[in-house]
Amino acid sequence: MLIETIHSPVDIKQLDITQLIALAAEIRSGLMNRLSKRGGHFGPNYGIVEATIALHFVFDSPKDKIVFDVSHQCYTHKILTGRSSAFFSEEHFGDVSGYTNPAESEHDFFNVGHTSTSVSLACGLAKSRDLMGESGNVIAVIGDGSLSGGEALEGLDFAAELGSNFIIVVNDNDMSIAENHGGLYQNLNALRKSNGTCACNLFRAMGLDYRFVADGNDIAQLIAAFSAVKDTDHPTVVHIVTQKGKGYTPAETDRENWHWHVPFDPETGHALQLGGGESYGDLTCDFLLKKMKADPKVVTLAAAVPVCIGFTPEKRKEAGKQFVDAGIAEEHAVAMASGIARGGGKPVFATHSSFFQRTYDQLSQDLCINRNPATLLVNTASVYGMHDITHLGIFDIAMMSNIPNLVYLAPTNCEEYFAMLDWSIEQNSFPVAIRMPCNGVFHTDRPVQTDYSALNRYQVTQQGSGTAVLALGDFYQLGEALAKKIAETTGTAPTLINPRYITGLDEQLFRELSDHHSVVITLEDGILDGGFGEKIARYYGPTDMKVYCYGLKKEFLDRYSVDEVLKANHLTPEQICADIY
Amino acid sequence: MLIETIHSPVDIKQLDITQLIALAAEIRSGLMNRLSKRGGHFGPNYGIVEATIALHFVFDSPKDKIVFDVSHQCYTHKILTGRSSAFFSEEHFGDVSGYTNPAESEHDFFNVGHTSTSVSLACGLAKSRDLMGESGNVIAVIGDGSLSGGEALEGLDFAAELGSNFIIVVNDNDMSIAENHGGLYQNLNALRKSNGTCACNLFRAMGLDYRFVADGNDIAQLIAAFSAVKDTDHPTVVHIVTQKGKGYTPAETDRENWHWHVPFDPETGHALQLGGGESYGDLTCDFLLKKMKADPKVVTLAAAVPVCIGFTPEKRKEAGKQFVDAGIAEEHAVAMASGIARGGGKPVFATHSSFFQRTYDQLSQDLCINRNPATLLVNTASVYGMHDITHLGIFDIAMMSNIPNLVYLAPTNCEEYFAMLDWSIEQNSFPVAIRMPCNGVFHTDRPVQTDYSALNRYQVTQQGSGTAVLALGDFYQLGEALAKKIAETTGTAPTLINPRYITGLDEQLFRELSDHHSVVITLEDGILDGGFGEKIARYYGPTDMKVYCYGLKKEFLDRYSVDEVLKANHLTPEQICADIY
Repeated sequence: MLIETIHSPVDIKQLDITQLIALAAEIRSGLMNRLSKRGGHFGPNYGIVEATIALHFVFDSPKDKIVFDVSHQCYTHKILTGRSSAFFSEEHFGDVSGYTNPAESEHDFFNVGHTSTSVSLACGLAKSRDLMGESGNVIAVIGDGSLSGGEALEGLDFAAELGSNFIIVVNDNDMSIAENHGGLYQNLNALRKSNGTCACNLFRAMGLDYRFVADGNDIAQLIAAFSAVKDTDHPTVVHIVTQKGKGYTPAETDRENWHWHVPFDPETGHALQLGGGESYGDLTCDFLLKKMKADPKVVTLAAAVPVCIGFTPEKRKEAGKQFVDAGIAEEHAVAMASGIARGGGKPVFATHSSFFQRTYDQLSQDLCINRNPATLLVNTASVYGMHDITHLGIFDIAMMSNIPNLVYLAPTNCEEYFAMLDWSIEQNSFPVAIRMPCNGVFHTDRPVQTDYSALNRYQVTQQGSGTAVLALGDFYQLGEALAKKIAETTGTAPTLINPRYITGLDEQLFRELSDHHSVVITLEDGILDGGFGEKIARYYGPTDMKVYCYGLKKEFLDRYSVDEVLKANHLTPEQICADIY
Repeated sequence: MLIETIHSPVDIKQLDITQLIALAAEIRSGLMNRLSKRGGHFGPNYGIVEATIALHFVFDSPKDKIVFDVSHQCYTHKILTGRSSAFFSEEHFGDVSGYTNPAESEHDFFNVGHTSTSVSLACGLAKSRDLMGESGNVIAVIGDGSLSGGEALEGLDFAAELGSNFIIVVNDNDMSIAENHGGLYQNLNALRKSNGTCACNLFRAMGLDYRFVADGNDIAQLIAAFSAVKDTDHPTVVHIVTQKGKGYTPAETDRENWHWHVPFDPETGHALQLGGGESYGDLTCDFLLKKMKADPKVVTLAAAVPVCIGFTPEKRKEAGKQFVDAGIAEEHAVAMASGIARGGGKPVFATHSSFFQRTYDQLSQDLCINRNPATLLVNTASVYGMHDITHLGIFDIAMMSNIPNLVYLAPTNCEEYFAMLDWSIEQNSFPVAIRMPCNGVFHTDRPVQTDYSALNRYQVTQQGSGTAVLALGDFYQLGEALAKKIAETTGTAPTLINPRYITGLDEQLFRELSDHHSVVITLEDGILDGGFGEKIARYYGPTDMKVYCYGLKKEFLDRYSVDEVLKANHLTPEQICADIY
């Protein structure tokens, strides 16, 4: 196999076009080997094999610096830069992450996992080069889906100011994670249809030079285009049209489902394990569809990840105009939700905890200063959520709960979650965020409260004495186990509390606890710094109450084992009891 | 005067064009009355008088909804919507804020003060209207400077998807706060030069319809254009060319200095009070210029507010290519700073605390996950900073200090600030943010530490016993006063500590304190929730140490008196002593 001769990008520069095409086929076999067994980003990687080969054929990495946007399409780059064993040998799958990673290779410049950052990061590399009087090309590779993100648009707009070598490869497969949303995609379509000649051109309107490649899966065309812009003295876009999932029929056909895929049988394309049982995504979708059918004012918003709350293409169609996908544009989605609520509509915007990070200012300025009653669903906000360093769900409590006026709720089971969601949609007083449970769908037989407008009233679910356990959100089940363990260990049943509200203290309850309790334990599924427990430690700071806060250390975890992280943070009932009693 | 007959927008619909022109002159006299005596946003308001008159002449507010971007240009709108006394009568100046404010009028839909939000907010109003089957026009009014912000670009891109009535008035005065930066301004220039006919058109490339008004200070032209798009059935841009500061020669001539202006003599344009003494802005500029001259790798970045660190047009010229203004594009600025640091440059990015809110995700993902050694200067981060609800500087500790890997420093005087800045620029290990002092320029005779790489070592500045006062950043002077008061009150001099590091605990010192102290008091110039003191309360939670955290309540203050806010939060030495002893 050719691939055995490729140890660094230098090695492909000797190959002729026929060999490069053969190499592409070999690379796809390596991708299939890893993706079918381990899962991962399928469509983006299958689509960009040829372009990556051509980039490394023309440019001289790492002197020439390539920055991949999101970097979920960097598998071929990894294969060509000394990491092919992580694709061809199962025992080496764990050697690499699914994103670019400077710890792995001198050919990777940033840990990247959020979209729309490549142009700005690469602008920085180019500026640094120019400051130091160095040479070399800087290349950002960005997909069409990522173009709708504010950071990417800011970067595209600024790039023209560099006035020196800078190349932006726009990898246009006419697809985001789901379909694209936004007016600029009409322009990309016009550019594709006119072979890049249409006079109205988003990139030229941003002050950039422009070049078009009609078949971005044709290595010869790509090499010609990249060679033409190599060592250019000004910022230039190379717009290449690729096919998402190219080379594997199921992925070419159903591009949304094959953007990322679980392990599957390569022969049939069927997933090896079917998801079973209830999921909050499907349940939320069903609930919202019912609400929307009953009330035309209710509208569900997503930002390019509609399936995180179960909105498959069929469900989106069912919701019609009451479903809005803002594209990769979370800032816009939050501000628009605020505007909808101001106008009398009932918006529900859902995305992942990690992606809410893009909206701090919109949460504060557009939503909370204005006290508009929008509902936010914060998904995978948990140590049980996504495990890549760039997609962690353990920071949202610290980020969101300290914004004034926001009511941030932490349901502890399925019934409570939907009661909170229903209340939030129907109330008119507060911006509300709900931290979707992430530790499985737990049900309760107890009646759940339907009205949450009397803020910051915690629920005592077990009256005891000595110790009070405040178990927030999806650490409530841990709280139940801890309460049992404390009773066993100390002989006295503790009080167990479901705080429900992340954003405020139940000071009346705290005063009452002081009578028959000397220890308070807080449990939260997120970092301790800036979090929930510290507020309680502050409240009791001047008193004799002993307060123990349990949660996660402030750190960027990466590809972690949940059990190991829980143990490292003393988050088992046994460890907590051993610490305290 | 005509203005006496205008109580609501309905009243101007009876006027003919000559009267409307006369009304514009009267309005400018009202603006001059307020601005010369009280200060405020001069250029934006003087430039948009005619356009605001035309909007209210053509549209029917509040059924038709006008959303002003930043809303620092809404003074004429306030005058025409029943609030003229706040401009013509000095005793009523305090009745209105400098921004749109729903509490003041049914014609204001949002509290707005950050740029680039109008299109998204207005999209929400339009969507709500469509969901409920209502009618009426929705109009966003956005300046050219605001277009470079990611949220605005996301909104422009999304707007085309609305598919119903939506009007975006682009108020193009060819100026941001300082000059514009970004490639899109080449396109605005081309559109101006071609009378709106040039085929390459940013707005059309975003999928929007487009109309051009050559003289946006000509009421007749504006009325014709707005009438033509009134009740349009699809999203449309009306690009109007206005003159910033129109009608007052000093403001027409020096547009940057007259964007916002302190009180002045209308005859001469001279400021009534000259700023005296040292300022951290000027000192920082001088320091950075010196660093940049000595080392070509050092580069200063701003995002449309270069003067916040003293970079006037002359100083920017002096810095040459080592000064970069990213325009209103804070996300890009932070990501680019990370890229520059990755490439070996030494970037320093400065902006206001309130504007860092736009960069949470860039701080986390682009900068801190990658541990790139960029320096951030956080300006007006203080209760002493800006006093408008939309520009508060009291949230950055909660927002930034809980991001892993960031080193956030709080200098307590001038010498320490520059020592920290110098260290940060020269080190290669950490992303560093520095909270610029905001309570005046204090000097010290003591030698200050030059190396801060041994993280989280607090400085004991006065060894005492009984009580330890941890006085963070520019509350250190309050800490000194408190220490004296405690000594007077209790007869025992307390220990005084300058924590220096916001982002970590000096646990060794904390253990030592336990020996001879029973009370710890923390002081911080920001909200308590998610802040510095709570971490110390958590540390001592399981112990007998009594911890009292002092800082600000989590709330959106507006146009406040610093003294009143300090008193309300018990932030005087007398109050603290009365609380504790």
